[in-house]
Amino acid sequence: MSDRSDEFMRIARYLAPLTEGFAGAFQLTDDAAVIAPMADRDIVVTTDTMIAGVHFIGDERPDLIAAKLLRVNLSDLAAMGAMPLAYTLNIALPDSIDDDWLQAFAEGLAADQAAFAITLAGGDSVTTPGPLALTITAFGTVGVGQAIRRSGAQAGDIVYVSGTIGDGAIGLKLLHEEVAGLTPDRRDELIGRYRLPRPRINLGLRLVGLASAAIDISDGLAADLTHVLEASGVGAEIDAAAVPLSDAARTVLDRAPDLLAIVLTGGDDYELLFTVAPGYAAKIVKIATDLSLPLTAVGRIVADRALHIAGPDGTEMQLSRKGWVHGG
Amino acid sequence: MSDRSDEFMRIARYLAPLTEGFAGAFQLTDDAAVIAPMADRDIVVTTDTMIAGVHFIGDERPDLIAAKLLRVNLSDLAAMGAMPLAYTLNIALPDSIDDDWLQAFAEGLAADQAAFAITLAGGDSVTTPGPLALTITAFGTVGVGQAIRRSGAQAGDIVYVSGTIGDGAIGLKLLHEEVAGLTPDRRDELIGRYRLPRPRINLGLRLVGLASAAIDISDGLAADLTHVLEASGVGAEIDAAAVPLSDAARTVLDRAPDLLAIVLTGGDDYELLFTVAPGYAAKIVKIATDLSLPLTAVGRIVADRALHIAGPDGTEMQLSRKGWVHGG
Repeated sequence: MSDRSDEFMRIARYLAPLTEGFAGAFQLTDDAAVIAPMADRDIVVTTDTMIAGVHFIGDERPDLIAAKLLRVNLSDLAAMGAMPLAYTLNIALPDSIDDDWLQAFAEGLAADQAAFAITLAGGDSVTTPGPLALTITAFGTVGVGQAIRRSGAQAGDIVYVSGTIGDGAIGLKLLHEEVAGLTPDRRDELIGRYRLPRPRINLGLRLVGLASAAIDISDGLAADLTHVLEASGVGAEIDAAAVPLSDAARTVLDRAPDLLAIVLTGGDDYELLFTVAPGYAAKIVKIATDLSLPLTAVGRIVADRALHIAGPDGTEMQLSRKGWVHGG
Repeated sequence: MSDRSDEFMRIARYLAPLTEGFAGAFQLTDDAAVIAPMADRDIVVTTDTMIAGVHFIGDERPDLIAAKLLRVNLSDLAAMGAMPLAYTLNIALPDSIDDDWLQAFAEGLAADQAAFAITLAGGDSVTTPGPLALTITAFGTVGVGQAIRRSGAQAGDIVYVSGTIGDGAIGLKLLHEEVAGLTPDRRDELIGRYRLPRPRINLGLRLVGLASAAIDISDGLAADLTHVLEASGVGAEIDAAAVPLSDAARTVLDRAPDLLAIVLTGGDDYELLFTVAPGYAAKIVKIATDLSLPLTAVGRIVADRALHIAGPDGTEMQLSRKGWVHGG
């Protein structure tokens, strides 16, 4: 990590306490951090960048920006079945960011570090004439060779999703005032789903050795399932009516059924989509019970390399560039 | 790594080939990369962000921007005595960046991957309304507990620097037309030192178990030595006349002796500063010979927690905020 400039010292005041408990971070005072080897554990590495004005508006509460940045990365770890370990943080700061903002941002990180058992290990901070730019690179661990890949789905496997689907995409529409008629509570609930992902770390850990493939739904159910199908060289048949909806999303869809396309193609769910052999169905039920987290079968993997989605009326839905439309 | 959007596919075309040889990168097609455990090796992690208009001008050749970004990180690995292993890359791209730029950028990475035995393992690419923003997080390995820290310097140790000092800072002044009178060859040499660091990986590897402390000189000799002194709880006496200069830098200093302050406080050398017990002096000579790299003793660690630099006239130089000035 570079410490050119007073800028770093200003940041380090807020960030160094976040390294507590991770000896190899050296309290951000050395050239690099050290991760000690763990017997029989692979290290899983993922990284995401978020830019103000692109991935968030910029006037959100700093602690929520921090949480979203960390959780987007945690969601990738969850999809691999990894246990969180540590992360590095890169901040490019415009002049408009003041110390109050930094303190609130660090508090958001601290809260999620406690919630997800992950610790800051290092980072870099620089100034920028452009928008706030944030990068987290997150490290997790998983048994050697046990990381859940996208490429293991096999014909006959059942396709599951966790939680409810489409809340984040509908929440974004609510933010843009494109959907009306919800109670304030339900509106807040859906917008909250967009703003703050819930990385399914505990589910991912339980799926190790059980799921044949997994991915987190960040690009939308259809797109992320397609990533799994392409990586695995298979296809899938999905029943749109089986896709689990929150009560709030159901209320929206009852008034505007065409928004089903948004449910299937919108991003920002950060639920897990995973495939398991049919013989494991009872184990999935047990995991759902243990975690108090709905795990819903939405379809099946097939050998034919295509994705078919049956709409609520039984006819096949057709993919369009911007979403899905009913076909004949 | 996120693959939201066609943007990622455009980038991946150029970057996926850079993962060849690193199985755990999964050709950038999975949620995360996997680093397999290595017996008795710590993993060293460092990260640096560079912003167009701040850390580089922006109109440099893309391959040189790529090389500088990677080498700045490699230099941090060198300071820890680590062997390069892999890196992740985050790119925030403004609209102005076209495919030719991306191809040249990837070619720059490819050349340095071969030169420094490091491989791309993952990353993320996003669009930005702001300037080009680049982050590399680099991973290296070192024997367990063997990473060279900043904190091990002890009174009596000799302070060494590698290569020549001040070339990068004078090169930057040449770019800004603040220094004149050099032959074109020497001008190019100094500007080249500013533009393209030479990370001292092989030196770092040889210093493991030998150096009591090390740092790469990115903030300037005085500032980086101060980092070592503060981390180690010691002081140092440095002889400015002993600081090794290139012939080109010597030519500049002969005409403008006051630029010695720039040599001592300017950044961007990316040489290593390290401390060793006096009994190891012969080993340092052997390493210098083996690597064909000057290793020059410039002073000594003392118990008194202060940095004293004796100027060429024997009087002590005084630190000022912007540089160093002669004291009485």
